[in-house]
Amino acid sequence: MKIYKESLDAMLGIVRQYTQQTTDMEIERRVYDIIEHVRTNGDAALREYSEQFDGVKLDDFKVDQSIIDEAWDNLPEDLKHALLVAKKNITEFHSREIEQGFVDMDTPGITRGQKVTPLARVGLYVPGGTAAYPSTIMMTALPAKIAGVKEIVMVTPPQKDGINPAVLGAAKLAGVDAVYQVGGAQGVAALAYGTEQIPKVDKIVGPGNIYVATAKRQVFGQVDIDMIAGPSEIGIIADDSANPVHLAADLLSQAEHDPRARAIMVTNSEKLAQLVSDEVERQLSQLPRESIARPAIENNSYIAVMDSVEDMFTVMNEVAPEHLEIQLPDPMEYMSMVENAGSVFLGRYASEPLGDYVGGTNHVLPTSGTAKFSSPLGVYDFVKRISFTQFSRERLQEVAKDITTLARTEGLEAHARAIEVRFED
Amino acid sequence: MKIYKESLDAMLGIVRQYTQQTTDMEIERRVYDIIEHVRTNGDAALREYSEQFDGVKLDDFKVDQSIIDEAWDNLPEDLKHALLVAKKNITEFHSREIEQGFVDMDTPGITRGQKVTPLARVGLYVPGGTAAYPSTIMMTALPAKIAGVKEIVMVTPPQKDGINPAVLGAAKLAGVDAVYQVGGAQGVAALAYGTEQIPKVDKIVGPGNIYVATAKRQVFGQVDIDMIAGPSEIGIIADDSANPVHLAADLLSQAEHDPRARAIMVTNSEKLAQLVSDEVERQLSQLPRESIARPAIENNSYIAVMDSVEDMFTVMNEVAPEHLEIQLPDPMEYMSMVENAGSVFLGRYASEPLGDYVGGTNHVLPTSGTAKFSSPLGVYDFVKRISFTQFSRERLQEVAKDITTLARTEGLEAHARAIEVRFED
Repeated sequence: MKIYKESLDAMLGIVRQYTQQTTDMEIERRVYDIIEHVRTNGDAALREYSEQFDGVKLDDFKVDQSIIDEAWDNLPEDLKHALLVAKKNITEFHSREIEQGFVDMDTPGITRGQKVTPLARVGLYVPGGTAAYPSTIMMTALPAKIAGVKEIVMVTPPQKDGINPAVLGAAKLAGVDAVYQVGGAQGVAALAYGTEQIPKVDKIVGPGNIYVATAKRQVFGQVDIDMIAGPSEIGIIADDSANPVHLAADLLSQAEHDPRARAIMVTNSEKLAQLVSDEVERQLSQLPRESIARPAIENNSYIAVMDSVEDMFTVMNEVAPEHLEIQLPDPMEYMSMVENAGSVFLGRYASEPLGDYVGGTNHVLPTSGTAKFSSPLGVYDFVKRISFTQFSRERLQEVAKDITTLARTEGLEAHARAIEVRFED
Repeated sequence: MKIYKESLDAMLGIVRQYTQQTTDMEIERRVYDIIEHVRTNGDAALREYSEQFDGVKLDDFKVDQSIIDEAWDNLPEDLKHALLVAKKNITEFHSREIEQGFVDMDTPGITRGQKVTPLARVGLYVPGGTAAYPSTIMMTALPAKIAGVKEIVMVTPPQKDGINPAVLGAAKLAGVDAVYQVGGAQGVAALAYGTEQIPKVDKIVGPGNIYVATAKRQVFGQVDIDMIAGPSEIGIIADDSANPVHLAADLLSQAEHDPRARAIMVTNSEKLAQLVSDEVERQLSQLPRESIARPAIENNSYIAVMDSVEDMFTVMNEVAPEHLEIQLPDPMEYMSMVENAGSVFLGRYASEPLGDYVGGTNHVLPTSGTAKFSSPLGVYDFVKRISFTQFSRERLQEVAKDITTLARTEGLEAHARAIEVRFED
């Protein structure tokens, strides 16, 4: 791995260079055409794309419930056990995220507050092929369920030999109500606008390739979406007390996701930097997904050696990693220094893959530096708030002049009159 | 106003026809070019656009603090009073929205939780000309301030005779740290990418025209944005107990915003429908903004007469109005029937303009049916969450097999090994 030993300012500049993003107008245009076609022609358009992109001819998109039930029943026992443990822990953690509304009645004659209600219908996008992750279904469907969402539907690209049984089994366990075989930008369009067979949803969540991500951005406003996911990344802050074999394994666990994935370590030990770099190389050559992990390590990953703990956190807060491991003694002490990260793993035994599966926290997390402004997927993503206000005649009268002054300053005469007519009789 | 008397199903179909939206690929392309130009050429691009679109030549975009201070000092006393009352009430209400993180330590050997932290820097977009609303600055800056955002910057289109003093005064009162004279898609691009003079922000909020809205959607992911605002709308649910003069005035208070604004009433009284329709016509002809309000009333607005209270709410939940007035006896009783709305105004004296200015609730609200999935702007929009997890060796060992099973099911061998190396020594 590349090792930098730079001043703080120089290192911050290097971090920023690694995180530039860009929009591709050609992909925007192609996705736009796909969405328009689905919006106008519904299921007929979906059938066309299914043949063209997936090589599968379909009349009905919905997967029979019997196939889903059977998939769960026939899963290997160890996988069932793992999914059940995941469900238990995810449910425990996410139940803490349930939000309550409030009522403010401190002032006589004024009642105001906020009501929290679940979204009515949510759509999960689940990638096909080797990127079909049963764990992601648990991470997206369970928080929606806990939020009280009435109906959860899932779309996933059709496969010549049927949808992956682990995906279907996880969908059943997580409480998904219907599974439709349609993928890509057309799957997103179907969820956003609805077709004859596929119901329109209020929010679309879940990861996908660049076409899926672009389609999500384009339909945003028509429906809500979760964050647009980029390649996965891990950041590690470690000192000499950490085990280089563990660190290398953790860095590689993210690198194996995608050639564009990023693995970044910041340390105050040049010795550790060298040990980890060597160990990454050693482990890399033994990985089945070496061809994916190697370009991720060589092109996008690095180790930064900084002088002080403070500088280590300054650099890592600029990275704003999706996953952050703190491998320092008494790691919890450092949580106050973490400003930007999706999910933090503290100490030697909180290896990042724990959080991918059964730790309880969500694994749908802000990537590519977006942890500066966004949060892990949670129960709060599947509710909305409604404000309410009641004022007595007296209370309105007290502020009537303030309202009409502001309304007339803004040139909105009808706003002022709506208040004044209340006091004309 | 057009009065419908239809079956529930027919009426729901009509509601949906009024809420179709669409993307304009030509505008997408022009906005894309503007963003690319600003991103590549920074302030030089902003100067070009300022001359081209606003007819103003500028070297420095930042408004001198002395001009801002002076603007506040010289505001009329009644306007100062109104802004101070607004600030007090908005602060009171929004302080209830502050969120806390949590720690779950129920299981020995496991500590996990969530930390809530404010965004570092937020940008407000404030439209120019007649749509420059000081109240909107209060509604966007104050929740950010309450959330703990360290730096709030504002962009607004340059004006030949300087920025509106009411806008500058409100910015000072609300705690905005810097005001830059740059508008349109280029203003959004400057906030998203930063230029020599304008700092990059983490989130952009505030309303704007179609170019601003399109630019916000395009930079979403690079930065966070609030909801993309459409034209304003009001829904009213009323029965014979309501005063038709009030109802008409309230409908017109939204209609005067925009020819595309929508005013919708649902009632169980044909008599009230007719009275309100006549009264709207009478008041409309006396409004200074009649030329804006009339097309809004004639093209986008309607009254629906339904048989039952239940059907009235079913129709209104399909409308999902930005503002909802419930003008029925004991209006609070009906809050449980409200599923989709931005902000609800209960009873005779909660006229909607109360909420625009001094009621305390936010007036940046989901429009065009997006209340089905989004919320009023609030303190929660200016924070993010960071999850954290610590497991002891024993606790990790208990779930190690579940993790490796899931990882290998998903073909992620390096994930499995990251756990296994912990137990090899």
